[in-house]
Amino acid sequence: MGHENEAAAAEPILLREVRDGVATLTLNRPRARNALSTALMAALQEAVDACAADEAVRVVVIAANGPAFCAGHDLREMRARPERAFYEALFAQCSRLMTSLVRLPKPVIARVHGIATAAGCQLVASCDLAVASTEARFATPGVHIGLFCSTPMVALSRNVGRKQAMEMLLTGEMVDAERARQMGLVNRVVAPERLDEAVAELAATLCAKSPLTLRIGKEAFYRQLEMPLEEAYAYAGRVMTENMLARDAAEGIDAFLEKRRPVWQGR
Amino acid sequence: MGHENEAAAAEPILLREVRDGVATLTLNRPRARNALSTALMAALQEAVDACAADEAVRVVVIAANGPAFCAGHDLREMRARPERAFYEALFAQCSRLMTSLVRLPKPVIARVHGIATAAGCQLVASCDLAVASTEARFATPGVHIGLFCSTPMVALSRNVGRKQAMEMLLTGEMVDAERARQMGLVNRVVAPERLDEAVAELAATLCAKSPLTLRIGKEAFYRQLEMPLEEAYAYAGRVMTENMLARDAAEGIDAFLEKRRPVWQGR
Amino acid sequence: MGHENEAAAAEPILLREVRDGVATLTLNRPRARNALSTALMAALQEAVDACAADEAVRVVVIAANGPAFCAGHDLREMRARPERAFYEALFAQCSRLMTSLVRLPKPVIARVHGIATAAGCQLVASCDLAVASTEARFATPGVHIGLFCSTPMVALSRNVGRKQAMEMLLTGEMVDAERARQMGLVNRVVAPERLDEAVAELAATLCAKSPLTLRIGKEAFYRQLEMPLEEAYAYAGRVMTENMLARDAAEGIDAFLEKRRPVWQGR
Repeated sequence: MGHENEAAAAEPILLREVRDGVATLTLNRPRARNALSTALMAALQEAVDACAADEAVRVVVIAANGPAFCAGHDLREMRARPERAFYEALFAQCSRLMTSLVRLPKPVIARVHGIATAAGCQLVASCDLAVASTEARFATPGVHIGLFCSTPMVALSRNVGRKQAMEMLLTGEMVDAERARQMGLVNRVVAPERLDEAVAELAATLCAKSPLTLRIGKEAFYRQLEMPLEEAYAYAGRVMTENMLARDAAEGIDAFLEKRRPVWQGR
Repeated sequence: MGHENEAAAAEPILLREVRDGVATLTLNRPRARNALSTALMAALQEAVDACAADEAVRVVVIAANGPAFCAGHDLREMRARPERAFYEALFAQCSRLMTSLVRLPKPVIARVHGIATAAGCQLVASCDLAVASTEARFATPGVHIGLFCSTPMVALSRNVGRKQAMEMLLTGEMVDAERARQMGLVNRVVAPERLDEAVAELAATLCAKSPLTLRIGKEAFYRQLEMPLEEAYAYAGRVMTENMLARDAAEGIDAFLEKRRPVWQGR
Repeated sequence: MGHENEAAAAEPILLREVRDGVATLTLNRPRARNALSTALMAALQEAVDACAADEAVRVVVIAANGPAFCAGHDLREMRARPERAFYEALFAQCSRLMTSLVRLPKPVIARVHGIATAAGCQLVASCDLAVASTEARFATPGVHIGLFCSTPMVALSRNVGRKQAMEMLLTGEMVDAERARQMGLVNRVVAPERLDEAVAELAATLCAKSPLTLRIGKEAFYRQLEMPLEEAYAYAGRVMTENMLARDAAEGIDAFLEKRRPVWQGR
């Protein structure tokens, strides 16, 4: 939820930088608290799709400029077009974007420096990992304005327990970073001045892994979660067999047994 | 589990009070530790159904009189009728009651001041939210008497992690309120003398929301939890579209943008 | 992951002891950090199946000798036979073993004194309960060697939250015992010198219960977890009815009402 009345900006609404294998996508509508307008979601979708295809990208970081991380949908835009067809397209666009983060064959880290609310909280929940500043705060406050955070709750309720999710959804109240970590919404909480370092460390850890292995594992993780136990094992057993027969596992195990660093080749 | 030998009481076994939109249903078999006899379950079912239908009720609180919150099924009653047909009817009655709390189109808060065991623990787990006194304690102790808490575990295992649920179910041991909060079984823990205030605050927060929005959101929450990700998003997107097209969302967003209080009309 | 170069040992690779109803199965390849070679998995499978059939066994404890609890699959063995058929059989063997712990009609406790990694971490996650020493540590480090812990994650992701599981899987980093407890991977953490006592206490608690009741409840627990709410209640209601009609529930309730100790007969 944010204001659309920013000056026609010279700056793009989404910044993209790739360095040392890490693509950082930075929401850049600071005066609108990075509200996810249709334009910003389209830019983010395009950037996410590009990261999936770009072999130079091994890890994706979602960051944001300005005091807030992301305030959710753009309310002015939503009220300006009170039409069923517009809303259907809007929520479909948002759901596709969030699902793309889950399906992206590379790890995605949320870098949360400030408030993440509604679809902004959903964005954090949809990333594989999240590092938060102690100043970050989280909420699904749609209930304050009569619009229950029903799509954000799809992601939220797959990160935290039922009663905890229900409290956030029914009250709309803010949760601080440490509480979010205890609930399972974020992985690590650091002082604001340590945030970039903590994200960089985590991203570098992931960049040192075989991209092929990360791709195989991430896809399997989300797929097996939705299966009963026996089916999940049958599926995961097939995945591990394929993984073992790929070059990187042979190289990795040999390097381990020979006490040397592995050289990854697979993608 | 409780004694049935209470004096023929002048008082009803369930008290019902509606004030400022909050219906408080109070289990009132204190000498039987509020054991859920078939009569008490029937009274609670009727009251819950009445709350669903009563437009004056916006939030439901489940509370209890006496030292215990609720000790589960009434063991004397159960042993007095050792018949398959009676047990089938008893567990069907209990499951219907617990499911009714989940399906009730209004938020339900458990006010837990004392021990909540077996079906009493299930009652807490079946509410959307729970506020506990530091003196509250929780257990699924059926295993002590040869009767595994199999129906309570349906609700418990949808609130807490597997190993934590298994520990409660296999050992039957008591869990204190703070541990219950950490596990996800209750939302808030307060000193006994603060319990009424804490419940009232939470209920008042929910009463300030649009009843229509709470109804839409609560129903969607439990439904989408049982769907795979893509299906959940498709469903939640339809829910949000309907929500946006309802009066209260338009009013809520306009009020937010105009910095005034919303006036809810939808139900 | 462990070395296979142990001397041809006089000792068996798996030790089995039954005392006071508790079967302790001890992994005994200490120099190989108890790596799960096909031979060790076969021995463990046989022992687990024997525990299921042996009426003298009421509780199973999985323990290990040497500095590590279990380092996962045996990497030398895996690299010595780089064949699809071998890997398929290996992962099927491992998945069957882990599933057997879940299906075993008696409680299984992991006694974790040291490092539990990859399939060793899976072994802990597959037990119903786990007691860890403060020196225990947990990881799914396959990603370091190009082999994502895809089968371990089936068990891990059914114990802990998504972001927490993903952090372990994507980074391969170690988690200490207290953090593992907070995440839900273990139930209790004690000082190393208290570990045997804590495991014995927990096992004795379970041995005092009706074996029939534990069998009924454990099976129902894992089955109902994979059902939608209404179906889970219908199933659990049938389970409780059968449980009530069995001798041990009648005896247990009567003993409770008469304030005496129950005498279990059912199995």
